[in-house]
Amino acid sequence: MREAEVIERLRRIATHPAARGLADDAALLDGLVITHDSIAEGVHFLPEDPPASVGWKLVAVNLSDLAAKGAEPAAALLSLTLAGDGAWDSGFIDGIDAACESYGLALIGGDTIALTPGAPRVLGLTAIGRAGANTPARGGARPGDKLWLAGTLGDSAAGLAILLEDPKATGVLVDIYRRPVPLLEAGQALAPYATAMMDVSDGLLLDTMRLAVASGCSATIDLDRVPLSRAFIAERGAGLPARMFAATGGDDYALLAAFPPEFDPALSVSLPSKPNLVCIGTLAAGDAPLYLVGGGGRPVPLPEHLGHEHRGIAFAPMADRP
Amino acid sequence: MREAEVIERLRRIATHPAARGLADDAALLDGLVITHDSIAEGVHFLPEDPPASVGWKLVAVNLSDLAAKGAEPAAALLSLTLAGDGAWDSGFIDGIDAACESYGLALIGGDTIALTPGAPRVLGLTAIGRAGANTPARGGARPGDKLWLAGTLGDSAAGLAILLEDPKATGVLVDIYRRPVPLLEAGQALAPYATAMMDVSDGLLLDTMRLAVASGCSATIDLDRVPLSRAFIAERGAGLPARMFAATGGDDYALLAAFPPEFDPALSVSLPSKPNLVCIGTLAAGDAPLYLVGGGGRPVPLPEHLGHEHRGIAFAPMADRP
Repeated sequence: MREAEVIERLRRIATHPAARGLADDAALLDGLVITHDSIAEGVHFLPEDPPASVGWKLVAVNLSDLAAKGAEPAAALLSLTLAGDGAWDSGFIDGIDAACESYGLALIGGDTIALTPGAPRVLGLTAIGRAGANTPARGGARPGDKLWLAGTLGDSAAGLAILLEDPKATGVLVDIYRRPVPLLEAGQALAPYATAMMDVSDGLLLDTMRLAVASGCSATIDLDRVPLSRAFIAERGAGLPARMFAATGGDDYALLAAFPPEFDPALSVSLPSKPNLVCIGTLAAGDAPLYLVGGGGRPVPLPEHLGHEHRGIAFAPMADRP
Repeated sequence: MREAEVIERLRRIATHPAARGLADDAALLDGLVITHDSIAEGVHFLPEDPPASVGWKLVAVNLSDLAAKGAEPAAALLSLTLAGDGAWDSGFIDGIDAACESYGLALIGGDTIALTPGAPRVLGLTAIGRAGANTPARGGARPGDKLWLAGTLGDSAAGLAILLEDPKATGVLVDIYRRPVPLLEAGQALAPYATAMMDVSDGLLLDTMRLAVASGCSATIDLDRVPLSRAFIAERGAGLPARMFAATGGDDYALLAAFPPEFDPALSVSLPSKPNLVCIGTLAAGDAPLYLVGGGGRPVPLPEHLGHEHRGIAFAPMADRP
């Protein structure tokens, strides 16, 4: 049974409406938005990463799922594996503490378990938020809707690339890779108007395809409009290869939202000064889930890898068209 | 930082009332009882255990925490690590499915992540229940209360001992080790009257000490009254060594509850035919948290190991007296 089949099996079990077909970033139960993401050493973080940044990141990736549903952070349960390195554990908890305090998330439970010696750490968090008036799913967008992005793309992937060359590297991009910022205010501001919303954790192209498939639409993304930070452009430029890197790198925790064509969130929604908000594409009726244009509107072929399909983080099957 | 210090750090962070000081089996938020327990390969289950039984057990250990709070199962989020063995994953999901269906638990979310090759599996579940009229904590018992136990002890530990001798062994005790049954009906029936309740997952002596410390009491347990199953007695007898084994073995998922002295739950509470319900001890004022008697009321010294302190499963510090 391959990973896609595993997820398909789980989806057949998950028939409760709160599950949203496991096709969403989070479940919705009794007015609470609930998500669980785990991260594994060697897969989602580097053994050399400062443990406080790993703790921060575990909280942030879960809060990004709440942000994508417009929820307000309420509480969390931590699943902590102990590998016998007290200094690491202490630093990790510092990071958990800092992130929980920054975002008003109360740690209310969880467990600690010992691992067999040498086993890589697997760290999990269940984050619980209070739902707003609208909790946009992935699958609610309609043909004609426009796709908007809050945040910038590629910073984290560029930071990881720098670290893989030089584990001691520092700088803005490394910081963004290690300490992503969940766009909670933006998510809460956009959710009432969005027909669909999700966070871009596995790469813009892959996640856009997921939103399009869940909504029964075809998406076209204009790579020229992919928002890049000054730090990213300084590192990798702003040409088409750099934009493709940014659109497939993942680990962004930007928000991807669909709005009716006449709605301009940049005009209609009161947002904190950051993040920037750009229209990056459109949805249409059609069978193929994803088209790319770039270099002034010319068709661009899809790359072989749309994002990080096997990094996991949330049940997010490709084949989830009803 | 040792494990106890890790938990102490976490408890200082967890100041929200829903956290119950992390001294309980579960958190209580907005009328929902929420718990997360993880199990690790080589620590909480054997690599040779049938994967369906591992899936069942993951659900059951979490439901046992809901049972101990008198909650009704509602929903769960699964954290699944994939180690590249599709047949194992398929069997594991069979077990998850069977347990969820048996106990009316809806799978509503979670995540799947890939592990690095060779890494032991770490499997987690967040279980959410609806609270009843009373959600007994560990720390609510008073001097004079009596301690009651629902269920039998030692079956699972005896089953594990059999398997460690012969991995191909079968029988009732092996079945109980692999497929524990959470005492949900008993928990719901007892919770309205209990001053304190918890499940006995790490060994009766260790968990009784935790309840006593959390309640600021001293507990005395009469080993002669430790309830043993016919299968357990057939395997290990009913003498004091067998009773000590049963009282420290852990993995029982029996319920330990405190009631006011005049209250007899065996008379007052309508329970399904199983489990049996026996008074096994008393609580008093006093500094030492735990005394044992046996062999007709004679003092019995505490054994070196009261239970499985490092198997983890739920934040449960020893030093949690306020």
